Amino acid sequence: MASNFPKWSERELIFNISEIFAEANSDVLVGIGDDAAVVSRPETSLVVTTDMAVEDVHFKVNWSSAQEIGRKVAAANLADIYAMGGKPKYLTVAMAATGNEELEWMLDVARGIAHEAHIAGAQVIGGDLSKSEKIVISITAIGECAKPILRSGAEAGDSIYISNLPGWSAAGLIALTKEIRGGAIDFAISEHRAPSVDYDNAEQIAINANSLCDISDSLLIQSEQMAEASGVQFEIDADLIAKHPDFAELSQIAELLNVSVFDLILSGGEDHVFLATGRALKGFEIGKVLPGSGIRLLHVATPQPGWKHFN
Amino acid sequence: MASNFPKWSERELIFNISEIFAEANSDVLVGIGDDAAVVSRPETSLVVTTDMAVEDVHFKVNWSSAQEIGRKVAAANLADIYAMGGKPKYLTVAMAATGNEELEWMLDVARGIAHEAHIAGAQVIGGDLSKSEKIVISITAIGECAKPILRSGAEAGDSIYISNLPGWSAAGLIALTKEIRGGAIDFAISEHRAPSVDYDNAEQIAINANSLCDISDSLLIQSEQMAEASGVQFEIDADLIAKHPDFAELSQIAELLNVSVFDLILSGGEDHVFLATGRALKGFEIGKVLPGSGIRLLHVATPQPGWKHFN
Repeated sequence: MASNFPKWSERELIFNISEIFAEANSDVLVGIGDDAAVVSRPETSLVVTTDMAVEDVHFKVNWSSAQEIGRKVAAANLADIYAMGGKPKYLTVAMAATGNEELEWMLDVARGIAHEAHIAGAQVIGGDLSKSEKIVISITAIGECAKPILRSGAEAGDSIYISNLPGWSAAGLIALTKEIRGGAIDFAISEHRAPSVDYDNAEQIAINANSLCDISDSLLIQSEQMAEASGVQFEIDADLIAKHPDFAELSQIAELLNVSVFDLILSGGEDHVFLATGRALKGFEIGKVLPGSGIRLLHVATPQPGWKHFN
Repeated sequence: MASNFPKWSERELIFNISEIFAEANSDVLVGIGDDAAVVSRPETSLVVTTDMAVEDVHFKVNWSSAQEIGRKVAAANLADIYAMGGKPKYLTVAMAATGNEELEWMLDVARGIAHEAHIAGAQVIGGDLSKSEKIVISITAIGECAKPILRSGAEAGDSIYISNLPGWSAAGLIALTKEIRGGAIDFAISEHRAPSVDYDNAEQIAINANSLCDISDSLLIQSEQMAEASGVQFEIDADLIAKHPDFAELSQIAELLNVSVFDLILSGGEDHVFLATGRALKGFEIGKVLPGSGIRLLHVATPQPGWKHFN
């Protein structure tokens, strides 16, 4: 559906975007420019996910650069493919813009998406452009996987693992809200603007995992979801979490922000850290899967229910 | 990315939507509820397209029912798959809502999408829900096709065909704007709210076609695009168009609305009629492909450049 924009023509924008997304990939039989993209027949099952980000709900244009916004929305989609034990291959991007954005700003969003897609081994093959009062970016990721790893596969006797320590994005959000800057806090802020998702660790932790998901809402929420889907109890031990090599740095940041480090780790979202269960996985162990239901936290108080992240 | 809505919980909504989109389809290995959907390996190349609709740009909630809005956005995506010579199989739906919608209204959007998907033989396998000030619906369609039919395949000597007569949606928009109702005009209004895309005709016209696309913007715009992509001239004959069995009815409507019927047919968009070139295709012939470039209109004046459709 075509729209009219004051500062650039849709044709000019799409021509430039096509250049940004162009890659020498022989799997793409028809790319951007026709009614739809065509890719060659995949070798395994297809994994498909979609994720939408809305200005002032999921990002703010005065908090994040255009490239960071593009990276963040792409990362949310790419992480979901890894969270199924899959490898992302293709992205489509639908974007609504006011039309008052500069052409370069629009292209920087595309560059951010292309950058993140490239890290994860994926390519943008199509899209759509609309007009709206607020910027909306909706990405669909298509990947391949030989054997999907579900949230429902956790078994009593499994250990619980994380691919990396979560909480940085939440810390960054608090720092932005409280306008605190400097040192390690700036790293947390950059993680909130666009998380540096560890796709290599995602692939490693998936090997032999019985269950797997990415932490988009929070470690507690995703643990609850996996425990419920699997019909087991997740016992998470704060003393194990405290042994993570990045725990000391995050603790310092939490102190500067005057929040509990475990609130950040347990209730912070959007880092897209991966949570898995299994035996002897290549991840950082934080607890055990037990018979029963729900979550049991050891050596830490449950975070306040009122504690919330950005969206 | 999770959001909080005042009138219903995301969990309640997604549970109900999962029921609406549920189908006995053995190709779907993992459906709604995990990080991503998984479908079995396709037998042919994949076709992928995405299309976004924004409230007050592509639809108005006081002009269209929730089911019509769902049908319309789904149709735009499904038509793009047929426009490549493909068959749609899977849809993902990302939707942003204010949260002040009634639960039933939200479910009716889902029912509209499911209805249209069902007609075209496709199924919704995943989605995302966000909060925003205006409703935004972004759908991605994935289909299969043995041999893609591009816009660039038109050859001098081909005839030009349409699958159905376009112009109804544009007529409906004008009727809504001018607040004219009654008789055949009500049919045009319903076509603007949600076009009844003729997927059977789309399949028929694609057989042996050299080039193919769906008319989302207008017959003239898509003809120009195909002529340019193919390096040929499209000669469209109004006398041939006037022989279409639905021409008399559309002419009556045009008269009641005080517009030119050929403006509706040539410059109206969003009916998702299919435009194809080839020899002896199963469609309605409206002209010839000639050596050269651009469009040559016979027996009719070129519509005013200021004549515009909704978006």
